[in-house]
Amino acid sequence: MIKVVLLGAGNVAVHLAKAIGKAKNLDFVQRYSRNTKSDNYFDTLISKTNNLNQLKEADIYIIAINDDSIADFSKKLTFNNGLVVHTSGSMPLNTLQCKANKGVFYPLQTFSKDQTIDYYAIPIAIETEYKKDAVLLNNFAKSISNNIYEINSSQREKLHIAAVFANNFSNHMYKIAKDICETNNFSFDILKPLILETANKVQTLNPAKAQTGPAKRNDQEVIQNHISQLAGEQKEIYQLISDSIIKTIKN
Amino acid sequence: MIKVVLLGAGNVAVHLAKAIGKAKNLDFVQRYSRNTKSDNYFDTLISKTNNLNQLKEADIYIIAINDDSIADFSKKLTFNNGLVVHTSGSMPLNTLQCKANKGVFYPLQTFSKDQTIDYYAIPIAIETEYKKDAVLLNNFAKSISNNIYEINSSQREKLHIAAVFANNFSNHMYKIAKDICETNNFSFDILKPLILETANKVQTLNPAKAQTGPAKRNDQEVIQNHISQLAGEQKEIYQLISDSIIKTIKN
Repeated sequence: MIKVVLLGAGNVAVHLAKAIGKAKNLDFVQRYSRNTKSDNYFDTLISKTNNLNQLKEADIYIIAINDDSIADFSKKLTFNNGLVVHTSGSMPLNTLQCKANKGVFYPLQTFSKDQTIDYYAIPIAIETEYKKDAVLLNNFAKSISNNIYEINSSQREKLHIAAVFANNFSNHMYKIAKDICETNNFSFDILKPLILETANKVQTLNPAKAQTGPAKRNDQEVIQNHISQLAGEQKEIYQLISDSIIKTIKN
Repeated sequence: MIKVVLLGAGNVAVHLAKAIGKAKNLDFVQRYSRNTKSDNYFDTLISKTNNLNQLKEADIYIIAINDDSIADFSKKLTFNNGLVVHTSGSMPLNTLQCKANKGVFYPLQTFSKDQTIDYYAIPIAIETEYKKDAVLLNNFAKSISNNIYEINSSQREKLHIAAVFANNFSNHMYKIAKDICETNNFSFDILKPLILETANKVQTLNPAKAQTGPAKRNDQEVIQNHISQLAGEQKEIYQLISDSIIKTIKN
């Protein structure tokens, strides 16, 4: 049994707590939160403290709090034993300033508290200072997810950038599409199946091969016609991304 | 029974033929293709001709061929009866130059021949010159899809632009994400669940509200750090879309 203490009570902590609670080879010995705000999202049977001096002994301490608070918070963990990990995609391992060994456990998914999530499907990027800790963290991660990736801090920084494109920027393309629908008095609903299918396709197909549309065909008549109907940043974005798609097919 | 003739043998025609074949209130009287290339994708029981002078009588003739060929092809349809529709998102209704009444039946989905598709889930944008034809085309469309939208040529042109953002441009964001993964020696697989979840979210949530990430938080430290690690068009795209997201949240 791997003994786990969870520190934090935000979206990431809520779903992690559920996953840890379900895993048979994990011993969820304690959770920490300085307030009671999110208590109703957690199993009441889990021992809770709001005092860092009363933390129980564990193999792994997981800090699931805001990125900006990780460094200062970790300084308060004065014990020497066990492995302390944070859950941030954008913070390097050495953000942690505790005495114990350090690591990262980064679940790559967007969380909201009330959502039902299949934790086993979430990719987890892990990193440790020491090989021995990698074995421990890998065993822990395997208990709650089927997709574990060992990724160092420098790779994780690039992964975060890639995730901004794959998640935030694709979502902004949906947002612009919705704006165009509404300006022209038809429902965004008509685009929803296409959005799902586009995301589905690249689960098995290389995105470059899955591409279709006027830029893929370098159909300048359609492209220029579209651009002439757009204004402001929509126009700029259409031009820039079309150029980028055209470059892709030329390479 | 609505009698249907299908003209063309590309991706759109293949899936349309399957859907028409399954529908109980449709009579699939004939299909036309000038060659035999794609014959194995079609039910052999459907009567086929490669001669436009031998077209059978029908209520609806569906032209499912390349956008650029629609105008010239439609001139060859010299009969006066029935409704002739094309299936293009980017061509106005009056692209058709046949003698019979004209319309548009635009299935909004990306098709590849070997894919299994639930046609009932595909949104269909329809348009006709005359009310009477709208009733006919609507009845036909309802036999194979649950999502029918009456949309005029001017709206359909905007819909096509919106679809370029929602489909082609979001797919290009996946492509850039994959490039970043591969340049840094980790697998694009790690991003796939996030891509699906992002597309899933906007099925029920407004994309502007679903947005997360550094630009949504206007976190200039992270944004500038990311931009400093990118080059060329990736850098330009990151900057432009981040600016656009920041504008969105300020409005």
